[in-house]
Amino acid sequence: MIRIGIAGYGNIGRGVECNIKENEDMELVAIFTRRNPDDVKTQGLCPVVNISEIENWKEKIDVLIVAGGSATDLPEQTPKYSKWFNCLDTFDTHARIPEHFANVDAAAKEGGNLSLISCGWDPGMFSLARLYANAILPNGNDYTFWGKGVSQGHSDAIRRVKGVKDAKQYTIPIDSALASVRAGDNPELTTRQKHTRECFVVLEEGADAAQVEQDIVTMPNYFSDYDTTVHFISQEELDRDHSGIPHGGFVFRTGSTGKENENQHVIEYSLKLDSNPEFTTSVLMAYARAIFRMKEEGKTGCMTVFDVAPKYLVPMDEAFIRAHML
Amino acid sequence: MIRIGIAGYGNIGRGVECNIKENEDMELVAIFTRRNPDDVKTQGLCPVVNISEIENWKEKIDVLIVAGGSATDLPEQTPKYSKWFNCLDTFDTHARIPEHFANVDAAAKEGGNLSLISCGWDPGMFSLARLYANAILPNGNDYTFWGKGVSQGHSDAIRRVKGVKDAKQYTIPIDSALASVRAGDNPELTTRQKHTRECFVVLEEGADAAQVEQDIVTMPNYFSDYDTTVHFISQEELDRDHSGIPHGGFVFRTGSTGKENENQHVIEYSLKLDSNPEFTTSVLMAYARAIFRMKEEGKTGCMTVFDVAPKYLVPMDEAFIRAHML
Repeated sequence: MIRIGIAGYGNIGRGVECNIKENEDMELVAIFTRRNPDDVKTQGLCPVVNISEIENWKEKIDVLIVAGGSATDLPEQTPKYSKWFNCLDTFDTHARIPEHFANVDAAAKEGGNLSLISCGWDPGMFSLARLYANAILPNGNDYTFWGKGVSQGHSDAIRRVKGVKDAKQYTIPIDSALASVRAGDNPELTTRQKHTRECFVVLEEGADAAQVEQDIVTMPNYFSDYDTTVHFISQEELDRDHSGIPHGGFVFRTGSTGKENENQHVIEYSLKLDSNPEFTTSVLMAYARAIFRMKEEGKTGCMTVFDVAPKYLVPMDEAFIRAHML
Repeated sequence: MIRIGIAGYGNIGRGVECNIKENEDMELVAIFTRRNPDDVKTQGLCPVVNISEIENWKEKIDVLIVAGGSATDLPEQTPKYSKWFNCLDTFDTHARIPEHFANVDAAAKEGGNLSLISCGWDPGMFSLARLYANAILPNGNDYTFWGKGVSQGHSDAIRRVKGVKDAKQYTIPIDSALASVRAGDNPELTTRQKHTRECFVVLEEGADAAQVEQDIVTMPNYFSDYDTTVHFISQEELDRDHSGIPHGGFVFRTGSTGKENENQHVIEYSLKLDSNPEFTTSVLMAYARAIFRMKEEGKTGCMTVFDVAPKYLVPMDEAFIRAHML
C-alpha cells in the first residue's frame, strides 16, 4: 500500500478523501493542518494532525500531497517538506516554475527524496498534451482554451468590487474560435476572440447596479480585454445554480507535413470536468503512485510530469498494459 | 545529429523523407530495400542500399525505422535488426504484441541495443491517451472511434470482390454516438452504433452492380456488422476525389469522482489527419529521438510508448521545457 499524507485541508484535501477509495493500492494515513485539529471536520478516514508535528510522520508516509496556494504557501512548504517526504504539489505560477523547481530539487536531494511539482491539469495534463503534440508536429501552432468553467481568481476579483456581496465568474471559450482552430484554419486570435466572461453577481443592499457593472467590465487584467456579461441575481439563486466548480478546456496543435507541407493535421485534447478540484486530485493520485515507484528505483530530486514514463501511473504491471492497453 | 535509417521504402519511408527537414537534430543516412536499389525512386536525400548489406551500416546509423507490414515482415525483421541497430516499428497486431515484445527484447539485449515497438497513433498516441486517462479516472469507461478515414484493409477486401476493379473505403464515426459519449451519457454502443462504412467502387466492365453491392455489405468481419453504403463511380472520379489517405479518430474516457461519485468528467483526445502515413511517421521521428537519448543513458532491450518519459521526445532541453511548456 502507498501511504498518502495531505498537508492542508481544503478542496484538494477533500478531493483526496473522495478519490482514495478508487485507488486500491493507496491508503490515507494523515491530514496535517495549521488549525486546531479538533476544529477540522473531515470524512474521518485518518487522523488530523497539527502541522507542527509533521516531521514525526517521516517514516509513516510514502507521498505527501502539499495542498497549499501557489502565491505564498507552496514556495515555502514544498521545499521544506521535501527534506522529509516525497512531495507532490500543484504549483501553478508559470513564471516562477524554474525557481520553485530548483528549490525543491535541492531540498529533495538533501533529504534523499523524490518530489514532483506543478501537477494537475494545467499545469499537468495540458502541459503533456502540448509537449507530445509539439514533439510530433514541430511545424505548427498551439492553441489553448479554458472553460466553460469557474475561475476562482476572477470570482474573487468581483467580490472585491464595492457594492458586491457575492459572485461567481465563468470563463467561456468562443465556439467560432474553437471551430476555426479545429478546422485547421490556423487563425490568429486576440484575447477577446478566444474567451468571453460571464459574471453572476449578488449586490449588497442599496448598491448601484450600473456602477458595479461598469467597475467589473472595465477592470484591467481581469475583464477589460474580454467581452464580459454581468447578471444580477439573488444570493438564493447563486447558491442554488452556481455552487459547483466545473472547469475544463481544450489544447490544440495544428501542423503540417509533406514534401510541400501540403497535409494538415489537428491534434486536440480536451477536458470537461464537473469538479475542478476533484479532477486535479485524481491526477495527483496517479502521480503519487509514480513518485512512489520511481523513488523505489532510486530516483531523487525534483521532477515534473515531463519526467515520468506513463507506465508508472497505473497500478497494473507492464506486461498487462502492453497486452491490454497498447 | 541523430542518424536515421529506413528499412523498406513505402508510405512510411516516404513520410520520413518529408519529415526529416522538420527535425533539425536528425539526418537521413540510408534507405534499405529488398528491390534493386536502382529501381527505387526516392527524393534522393540519401543512398538507397540493398537490404542484404544492412549489417555493414551498424556503425553509421543511430536508429533504424523498420517500415514493414505487421502480418509477416515485422515479426521477423524487428528482432533480426535489433541485434545490430536501435529499431523502431509500427507493429499493430494487438493480440501478438506480447510475443513480438519478447522477441525484440531478447534480440535487442543480445545486441546491446534499444528498440521500441508498436509506435504511431494507434497503437501509439491513442494508447497513451487511454493509459493516462485510465490512470486519472480509475472508475470509468473507455470509448475509441476511428475516422473519418481510409481503411486500407477494408479497401483491399472490396478490391478482392468479383467484379470490382478498384475501391476506397471510409470508416466514419457516427455523430450521435460521439455526442452521447461527449455528453457523459456513458452509452453502451454496439459495433453498428459506433461507425458506418462508406465505399467508393469502380466496377469492371460488365460487372453486376447489385451483386457486387450485396457481396460487399454482407461480407463477414469486414462489413456485415456495419451499416454500409456503396457508391459506384468511375476510375477517373476515384483517382480525382479519393486519392488521399486521411484518417483520425477519438479516444474518450468518462468517469466519476466524489463522495457519492456525483461528479462526471470527460477526457477526449482526437486526431484529424490529412495523411495517415505522414502523421504516423511524425510520431516515429519523435520516438527515434527518445530511443537515441535513452540508449545514450545506457538503456537496452525493448520498450513501448508507455516506457518513455515525455521529455525525451522534444529536442529542447529540460530547463527550457519546464520554463516554457509546463
